[in-house]
Amino acid sequence: MSEVHAVRRGLLRDRCAAAGSAAALVSRPANVRYLAGGAPPGAVLLLGPGEDVLLCPRAPAGEPGHGRPDEALRVDVLPTPDGDPVVAAAGLAAASGADSLAVEEHDLTVARHRAMAKAAPGLKLADLGFTVEQQRIVKDEEEIGCLRIAAEITDQALGELLESILVGRTERHLALELERRLVDHGADGPAFATSVATGPNSGQGRHRPSDRRVEEGDFLSVRLGANYHGYRCEIGRTFVIGTAPAPWQIELYDLVFAAQRGGREALAPGAAYRDVDRAARHLLESAGHGEGLQPWTGHGVGLEIEEDPQLAPTAMGKLDACVPVTVGPGVHLPGRGGVRIDDTLVVRPEADGGPELLTMTTKELLAL
Amino acid sequence: MSEVHAVRRGLLRDRCAAAGSAAALVSRPANVRYLAGGAPPGAVLLLGPGEDVLLCPRAPAGEPGHGRPDEALRVDVLPTPDGDPVVAAAGLAAASGADSLAVEEHDLTVARHRAMAKAAPGLKLADLGFTVEQQRIVKDEEEIGCLRIAAEITDQALGELLESILVGRTERHLALELERRLVDHGADGPAFATSVATGPNSGQGRHRPSDRRVEEGDFLSVRLGANYHGYRCEIGRTFVIGTAPAPWQIELYDLVFAAQRGGREALAPGAAYRDVDRAARHLLESAGHGEGLQPWTGHGVGLEIEEDPQLAPTAMGKLDACVPVTVGPGVHLPGRGGVRIDDTLVVRPEADGGPELLTMTTKELLAL
Repeated sequence: MSEVHAVRRGLLRDRCAAAGSAAALVSRPANVRYLAGGAPPGAVLLLGPGEDVLLCPRAPAGEPGHGRPDEALRVDVLPTPDGDPVVAAAGLAAASGADSLAVEEHDLTVARHRAMAKAAPGLKLADLGFTVEQQRIVKDEEEIGCLRIAAEITDQALGELLESILVGRTERHLALELERRLVDHGADGPAFATSVATGPNSGQGRHRPSDRRVEEGDFLSVRLGANYHGYRCEIGRTFVIGTAPAPWQIELYDLVFAAQRGGREALAPGAAYRDVDRAARHLLESAGHGEGLQPWTGHGVGLEIEEDPQLAPTAMGKLDACVPVTVGPGVHLPGRGGVRIDDTLVVRPEADGGPELLTMTTKELLAL
Repeated sequence: MSEVHAVRRGLLRDRCAAAGSAAALVSRPANVRYLAGGAPPGAVLLLGPGEDVLLCPRAPAGEPGHGRPDEALRVDVLPTPDGDPVVAAAGLAAASGADSLAVEEHDLTVARHRAMAKAAPGLKLADLGFTVEQQRIVKDEEEIGCLRIAAEITDQALGELLESILVGRTERHLALELERRLVDHGADGPAFATSVATGPNSGQGRHRPSDRRVEEGDFLSVRLGANYHGYRCEIGRTFVIGTAPAPWQIELYDLVFAAQRGGREALAPGAAYRDVDRAARHLLESAGHGEGLQPWTGHGVGLEIEEDPQLAPTAMGKLDACVPVTVGPGVHLPGRGGVRIDDTLVVRPEADGGPELLTMTTKELLAL
């Protein structure tokens, strides 16, 4: 493990050099963590021309607990007690003889960028762009291992909830209960704000849990995921409450299930992002649900819950092996509710058995 | 309430005009919320020269639940489905005849700023700086009312925890339980990540809850707060577990209590920030705990949990009436643990009874 981060930094340094910068400053927290093994609050990573170094603002004194137990730093640390670490980094890069420093312009604020330019007037500030984000798309087996554990934890938390009484409980309480169970089973925390949606709210992927209580006959849709060692997965399921689903519920469920299966089956190395989206989307459109659909069917996951690639109609690019993505189409009928089914999978070649499903909870329509 | 936001925007517009900009673009979420009554994800607020308008990126279709129940927008909304709303705002400002637009350079990234400049090449982009943050420091009684309710909720959640069995439970579980109780009592959520620290971890304000279990003889320090309608308060208390505290525990507790009281009693309109800090800090320094102290004794609270002012040795400025702040000194002895006592109060003139304490949970050293 200790070598992995050095190799990642070496790769990035090569790419920077090829683009004409001998030094790079990484400030986006997930990128810092990817390259350094951890990202203390406010820390930024300076690569080359000298030794790589993590510049950290002063942690509140006497608070060693500030560090995160799921992180292990793999790089030298330089405290920068007096002011912004990006300014210190600019000075350090200039002092090390760099004439150009590539920065993450999509992360740095104008004010910080200006302060860097002022502190090191001879240093040319270039744009690193999304180089690190691109590097993060294909995962190694250690990263996939973390996602697999995150998915196991998520399945356990969801499975336990399904064994309990649901009718009469509020969306908020169910969401809090799911998050507690994630932590019980070893998650560092939820991967994102857990969504529980009942009745007319169901089928909305990002519904914020309300005080509405679960009722007989409701659709209940949940969306949750664990964060395990920084890696975040996602599952979405829809259930029906009571003895038997209504005909419209069965029909809608079968439709979304078929669309989600279409998306899953389209996952393969070399498949265009937009074709995966299309494989799920066209069924929903043909059934007349085109208008209310989300702009994407799925997205990459990893150190962030929404990473590249985006599986969307206008996305450019093709899947590689070892890219973990979600496939989660849904339909929401205003006033009635809806269905969303969401899995996290890893793209694998057919020779290896095709896409690897990480989130194993059944996708049958359960009546709870 | 509906007038309040228009008045705030009018005040900001006057300040911008005085600084030479007929238009301003507010992008920092807490600032957007302060001025518009709500801040949907990614929304930015354009003030003048025409009508004020909130530009919102396309919400995922069919997901009306995206909005937050504790928010009510008080301004016209313009969806910007194609791309970044700050770019749309630049175009709109230029089209409305503005020659200069003040932006929040401490919030906008370099990439977004560049895209704005490209979209509206004739428009001069000025810096709004921390104008809105400064405007937010003094609260009106409606805002203080929200903080008061947040503090009541926090006291209730903490009070209930103290009635339960603590020995043998982990820091993580206690933290989750506190957060659940905050929501039970009407919070929109926790104001920040709840900290529960036991034994050698105690006394660290930002300790991240671990799997350590509460033991007899431990100090137990907790730090939590409710978010109510966006307003966030903070309380910190330290307890001792078991029948009787040890002499060193009593001594340390009395010291931190005296320091915290010193800070509280120094709160008055006109008091220098640094003098409030000094009133708490000097007692801890005199007792030989100077080295491990936090860089500040307290800070403003409101729509963010850490706002201006900062009560710190080098802070410049003086308190006004109706400024809510925390006062929360602490001492942590490595390997042994420590004490932190933290309240949220509102600065009031002596004629009105002096500082108003919002967090009412007792500060006696309870043996639980």
